Amino acid sequence: MTARVYVSMKPSVLDAQGQAIHSALKSLGHKTIQDVRQGKFFDLQLAATDKAAAAAEIEQISHDILSNPVIEDYKVELMD
Amino acid sequence: MTARVYVSMKPSVLDAQGQAIHSALKSLGHKTIQDVRQGKFFDLQLAATDKAAAAAEIEQISHDILSNPVIEDYKVELMD
Repeated sequence: MTARVYVSMKPSVLDAQGQAIHSALKSLGHKTIQDVRQGKFFDLQLAATDKAAAAAEIEQISHDILSNPVIEDYKVELMD
Repeated sequence: MTARVYVSMKPSVLDAQGQAIHSALKSLGHKTIQDVRQGKFFDLQLAATDKAAAAAEIEQISHDILSNPVIEDYKVELMD
């Protein structure tokens, strides 16, 4: 089983890296770009066969380890 | 128009950060996790209305600026 976890800054938190990329793109002539936000994703390979148990474990890992819930949001996507 | 660009290490390249997370998860008792790979994503907001032109611009930005094609793969997803 594979899970993908997306972690990104909460909309209310300044995304400094995204803003740096945005201003770099503007200075390189890409004027159509209006906003850039950056995030991370994690592809986890699981040996679990029980989808509900796997979902619960990934949820816990995402909350406790992969993200900082104070400033970041996460989204879990379970594949097959 | 919104585009999401995924950037990750090529499968042949060592993903040191993913391996570090994997061993941390194992030492924390998450034995079902078999592999972890980490990547980045970028959400770009575009003013463009022509989908083909936007796709070409995002493709160029992804190749030239957001990724290092020597060691990284990228994937573009155009939304609405």
